[in-house]
Amino acid sequence: MPNRYFARVYVSLKPGYSDPEGEATAGALRGLGYGVEDVRVSKVYEILLEAKNRDEAGRLVEEMCKRLLTNPTKDDYTYELREME
Amino acid sequence: MPNRYFARVYVSLKPGYSDPEGEATAGALRGLGYGVEDVRVSKVYEILLEAKNRDEAGRLVEEMCKRLLTNPTKDDYTYELREME
Repeated sequence: MPNRYFARVYVSLKPGYSDPEGEATAGALRGLGYGVEDVRVSKVYEILLEAKNRDEAGRLVEEMCKRLLTNPTKDDYTYELREME
Repeated sequence: MPNRYFARVYVSLKPGYSDPEGEATAGALRGLGYGVEDVRVSKVYEILLEAKNRDEAGRLVEEMCKRLLTNPTKDDYTYELREME
C-alpha cells in the first residue's frame, strides 16, 4: 500500500535571468513610496503524493520538477519532503 | 543612513479558497501518471528594501503585503526578515 508524502517545492529563476513580475512589483512598490532595491518572485508547489517509500517519493518529485514544474534552462529548484501520518 | 533588509514573503491562499493553478498542475501531473492527491501553489516575494531599523523594516513589509502583495480577503502571508551587511 502506498504511503502519503507532502512535498514543498521552491522554484526560482536562476541568477541572471530577468524576472518581469519581480520588476513590475518593485516598480509598483517604488510608486507607493517604498525604498525597494530589488524584488524577485518565486513559486512554491505544495504537493500531496503517493509513493512506496521516501526514496521513491524523492525520485518522483525530482521527475515532476524536470518534466512539468520547472524550466531546466532558467529555473532552479529545491524541495522538502515529509511523510504524512 | 538607511540600512538594507532582505524580506522573504510567502503568500498563499487561505484554506477553503480554490486554487485553479494548483488544480491544473495536479491534473497535469495525474495525466503524466503520478499519484497526486492535491497541489497548492503559493508565491514568494524576495524583497531588498531600505529601512532605518528592523522594526521599521517589519512595519514596511506588513504595509507592502496589505497594500500590494496580497488580497486580504483570500490570501494568508508570513515573512522572514534579515539585515544585510
